[in-house]
Amino acid sequence: MQINLGGGLPDPITFPWEQITDIVSYLLKTKQDKALQYASSQGIEEVRHEISNFVRKRGFSISEDQILITGGAKEAIFLLSELFSNIASEEPTFQGFISTMKFKHINVYPIPWDDKGPILDILEKKIKEVGSINQIKYFYVIPIHNPTGRVMTLQRRKQLLELASDFDFKIIEDDIYGFYTYDFPPLPALKSLDKEGRVIYISSFSKIISPGLRIGFIAYEGKEIEMLNNIKAEINHQVSSLDQLIVGEILKRNIIDSIIDNSLLLYKKKRDVIVKSIKEYFPTDTECSYPEGGFFVLCKNDKLDSSVLLKEAIKRDVKFIPGEKFFYSEGKNSFRLSFSYAKENEITEGIKILGELIKQIKEY
Amino acid sequence: MQINLGGGLPDPITFPWEQITDIVSYLLKTKQDKALQYASSQGIEEVRHEISNFVRKRGFSISEDQILITGGAKEAIFLLSELFSNIASEEPTFQGFISTMKFKHINVYPIPWDDKGPILDILEKKIKEVGSINQIKYFYVIPIHNPTGRVMTLQRRKQLLELASDFDFKIIEDDIYGFYTYDFPPLPALKSLDKEGRVIYISSFSKIISPGLRIGFIAYEGKEIEMLNNIKAEINHQVSSLDQLIVGEILKRNIIDSIIDNSLLLYKKKRDVIVKSIKEYFPTDTECSYPEGGFFVLCKNDKLDSSVLLKEAIKRDVKFIPGEKFFYSEGKNSFRLSFSYAKENEITEGIKILGELIKQIKEY
Repeated sequence: MQINLGGGLPDPITFPWEQITDIVSYLLKTKQDKALQYASSQGIEEVRHEISNFVRKRGFSISEDQILITGGAKEAIFLLSELFSNIASEEPTFQGFISTMKFKHINVYPIPWDDKGPILDILEKKIKEVGSINQIKYFYVIPIHNPTGRVMTLQRRKQLLELASDFDFKIIEDDIYGFYTYDFPPLPALKSLDKEGRVIYISSFSKIISPGLRIGFIAYEGKEIEMLNNIKAEINHQVSSLDQLIVGEILKRNIIDSIIDNSLLLYKKKRDVIVKSIKEYFPTDTECSYPEGGFFVLCKNDKLDSSVLLKEAIKRDVKFIPGEKFFYSEGKNSFRLSFSYAKENEITEGIKILGELIKQIKEY
Repeated sequence: MQINLGGGLPDPITFPWEQITDIVSYLLKTKQDKALQYASSQGIEEVRHEISNFVRKRGFSISEDQILITGGAKEAIFLLSELFSNIASEEPTFQGFISTMKFKHINVYPIPWDDKGPILDILEKKIKEVGSINQIKYFYVIPIHNPTGRVMTLQRRKQLLELASDFDFKIIEDDIYGFYTYDFPPLPALKSLDKEGRVIYISSFSKIISPGLRIGFIAYEGKEIEMLNNIKAEINHQVSSLDQLIVGEILKRNIIDSIIDNSLLLYKKKRDVIVKSIKEYFPTDTECSYPEGGFFVLCKNDKLDSSVLLKEAIKRDVKFIPGEKFFYSEGKNSFRLSFSYAKENEITEGIKILGELIKQIKEY
């Protein structure tokens, strides 16, 4: 039995399958024509309406006309990538963001994190350095951070917005883990602090309802939504009508709060297990981030090549993702461990195995 | 009440909503982890397996490894457009193909249809004219034609394959209406006549199960499938797991044959109604294609600007699509009428209204 500490898969125990069964039965009885027919590229209006209510939980208001439904947050990123030829991005970051930037040949300026968020002095310096010719107009950030699980502080959020105002750039906030902070209540989304319309907000129901349904969205009050909608239409016309209505109905019936509450408890326990296991089994020269939120821990050992570790780990049925995937040009000594999917005993067992392997490999 | 002769919407009466309700209930009880979890970008293996069985109905065999599941046929077209910078395309053709080519700045060589299919002498001449520098490597065709409803003859299909062999190009066959021929049984897909691996087959369940589920696919035995899979991963990772499994289960339970049989009867009746109504109500100088298959009729009147006709038609609650959308650079005098969605009495009423308007407008 493989222990999967790799992808950001939600624990299937969180999937509200009984409610979805009821909802599909209801939808196909009462609005089969809508659920199974073509819909507009922007997304079904009543679903966008529910999403516009939903984002109030993240501290901001936006009209349903300013929401575009996308095939997960990943498609939101792809669509946005049509808007720019360069971008500043936090580093490390979501591997799917890096790979899409590479695929689109977009020039990226990586900005490292400290334990409070992206280091803004470095961002400012880079902006000045690049100057006006290839002006940096967008900055990508995941405040509940993937891959480290760190959470951007409120102060850093405010400072980032000030910087955006000073240097006239927009922030792409990927808030996919926004509800998952384990030691304190969710922090306000950057978007909720945004007074100048600088934050393009992207999120998804993949980590709170189901990633198989592929319902993400972009919320933004600028003209970009219309442009992105047109691009969406050319790529695949629309997201599944049935899946949109399922998510819309979950929001409408207001069962999302209990799903999130239960998931939060579950992931907090798993977070505690992985932190404890790392402390117990990893050699002390292996440094790991402390995940205040999200699904992941990023570990680093300067004497270790994480692809060698992975090769050995797979032989013992443990899977994780090597650090290179999360950096634009380094990360060889890092590796990301996910605690969202594996069961608690699997997490302990997996970390124990990895601890043994790290000690062995270092001895070579 | 609007009469919609516009988009290629299936009649909702064909949607197998009761079966889908049963299937979702079954899927979420027995494989909720799979139905609601992330899946591979290529598509869920058991679903690809069912699709590989399904395409035998169109006369060819292909392994599940050579199938990529896409967000409708539209996404299949977008993915394929990443492979080329120029293409020869039938004209008129699917408006969604034309718009994606424009969006991607792909140079298109339009090849007109006669009543048997794309005119191959013109295609051959164009290939020779273009020569080897910007060599034409792909030709796009919808054998059950959108927008004319004409059906490419068996002989023309064979000749096209010979030409492809002689001039070393590949054919992108869009077989989305493949089952819908009304005066004779379905003709073999180009792919089923393909002995040299020249036909990249794309299709979708949008017109036979539900367009809201967004399940299309590309079937091809060449290395392109892997490239397209990688591109798909960068765009949106995957198509909805739930929707894939719904379609897979419909195929597995073999209820697809009766859905297609019933739909075929329904659309044949509507086809007969639109043909009869056109004969009765349109002025004789308005020429319309005779739809042997598919969902559409293309009409033309040289004295008419179809955008003017549309403006008047909308005032009387009738909708259709002006011809310009289906041509790369003309079509002003043409317009496409869909008979798939409107009810029989609506078709008659809509055609009557359009007939009156054509006569009125011509008098100006």
